[in-house]
Amino acid sequence: MKSIKVFAPATVANVTCGYDILGFAVHEPGDEVLIKLTDSPGIKIKEIYGDRGLLPKDAERNTVSVAIKAFIDHLDIQPGVDIYLHKKMPLGSGLGSSAASAVAGIFGLNALLDNPLKVSDLLPFAMQGEAMACGEAHADNVAPALLGGFVLIRSYNPLDVVKIDSPKDLYATIIHPHIEIATKDARSILKKSILLKDAVQQWGNVAGLVTGLIKEDYALIGRSMEDVIIEPVRSMLIPGFDQVKAAALEAGALGCGISGSGPSIFSLSRSRDIAIQVGEAMNECFQSLNISSDRFISLVNQQGPLIIS
Amino acid sequence: MKSIKVFAPATVANVTCGYDILGFAVHEPGDEVLIKLTDSPGIKIKEIYGDRGLLPKDAERNTVSVAIKAFIDHLDIQPGVDIYLHKKMPLGSGLGSSAASAVAGIFGLNALLDNPLKVSDLLPFAMQGEAMACGEAHADNVAPALLGGFVLIRSYNPLDVVKIDSPKDLYATIIHPHIEIATKDARSILKKSILLKDAVQQWGNVAGLVTGLIKEDYALIGRSMEDVIIEPVRSMLIPGFDQVKAAALEAGALGCGISGSGPSIFSLSRSRDIAIQVGEAMNECFQSLNISSDRFISLVNQQGPLIIS
Repeated sequence: MKSIKVFAPATVANVTCGYDILGFAVHEPGDEVLIKLTDSPGIKIKEIYGDRGLLPKDAERNTVSVAIKAFIDHLDIQPGVDIYLHKKMPLGSGLGSSAASAVAGIFGLNALLDNPLKVSDLLPFAMQGEAMACGEAHADNVAPALLGGFVLIRSYNPLDVVKIDSPKDLYATIIHPHIEIATKDARSILKKSILLKDAVQQWGNVAGLVTGLIKEDYALIGRSMEDVIIEPVRSMLIPGFDQVKAAALEAGALGCGISGSGPSIFSLSRSRDIAIQVGEAMNECFQSLNISSDRFISLVNQQGPLIIS
Repeated sequence: MKSIKVFAPATVANVTCGYDILGFAVHEPGDEVLIKLTDSPGIKIKEIYGDRGLLPKDAERNTVSVAIKAFIDHLDIQPGVDIYLHKKMPLGSGLGSSAASAVAGIFGLNALLDNPLKVSDLLPFAMQGEAMACGEAHADNVAPALLGGFVLIRSYNPLDVVKIDSPKDLYATIIHPHIEIATKDARSILKKSILLKDAVQQWGNVAGLVTGLIKEDYALIGRSMEDVIIEPVRSMLIPGFDQVKAAALEAGALGCGISGSGPSIFSLSRSRDIAIQVGEAMNECFQSLNISSDRFISLVNQQGPLIIS
């Protein structure tokens, strides 16, 4: 029986000013998915570990199996697929948990099937898993989880995904405070219309951030990491956000913001030492508010999914 | 008596999706300004050629003298400055006419004074001329006229201007139809608030356009030259805009849009031959509507102002 075990990484979507269009992958945390090809057609979620019983084993409601179903329907084949999902990252943390699982699943199955599709062509199927989990087919977690590095989703219709170069020594510090925000809630509090003048400021920053990443201009990256539209609203859902962000910048971070829809907060720094100091400072802030948290420090993950065995 | 004659280029602001934050310079058209240092303190507009009598000779109301006044006030000197302004580009065309004059003036005076300021530090003074001419201190014409090439205005407060690399063989085709739009009217018809979903599409395109320029990815430049916010409104002021744009794309342009607040329309192309064909096609469209027009074809001007004598 052929089997494969794949790790797919957590991702930071939005990256301050790039709401819905920008994301990057890290080396940890992430999810692992074991895929086995069997002789009895059909997709089965055999086991889920590490989810505290929260995720559905029903193959029509699980992000991994929905993504795999979309993929094999496209290939017009009917293999037997057993799925073992190892959640190794917090659910509902704003770190692209469902995206990591879906990507690990279809990346693994594609490899088991001797790569009928290029990796980049797997994206629409992973997005279908995401659509089931989040209500909308966003790509800003799925695309960096699949492709690695920083990824721009220039357009959704048609889907147009562009890898963005970034400095090789750019480190992310992620703090996941143990509070809960539902992605759907985090979307519903956003206003449907915004001021043109704020949008102009935001797209100036988006252009600056992308330019800074490509040109390895750390100062420009830092100046551009400003979100005048989404963060002022969503940060209200995260106790202590302003203090944590101030502490990160004080400790030397280039910039700091909400990861995806939160509650995790990420910073970017130009060395591992600074990223560690930033993590200490952010963590102390949450501790002073009696909020426990997890901490992750990682280079930007340029690779994406990784075959473990 | 020391004197200098300087050419400063026309500029295309906005560049489709980059409203208020992006612009680039061309080699023609442009304005020429002759500056003479005299012994009698004070700034005088001695002559204006080519403006059909439309521009004020009053030094407190002319964009060149206002910019020069701001510059010498900053230097805390009181030279005598005589200004001869040769308008060699159409007024009110959406090609940064007032910006070109102001930039030529202060660039020339700075050179006459043995460069007390770096060229990039002249920007705020040129912007004061622009503020007088347009009512607001925009930089998306002044900055590329002064610095050359593509320029991103990441932020206005504080002012943060970033040069953006672009392909060496990128050509602009500009058609100036002989109709009139006042910049203030073109601003007043814009809505003050926009849909978040449209803003997301726009900043995806802005990020794509900047990435395409830096990476010399012509296809990405073309896909990203889409403006879902400003163009749908302002294009209503330009008869035949939709046909002219369609003709430009049909003839091989990477993209096409309104130059600044119009009525000029610009296209970008990846060779001179294509840029010429695009110009023919755009021109024919306006001819069929009985609208006469000027046509300019130019490489992106990487240099900015040029000392003529």
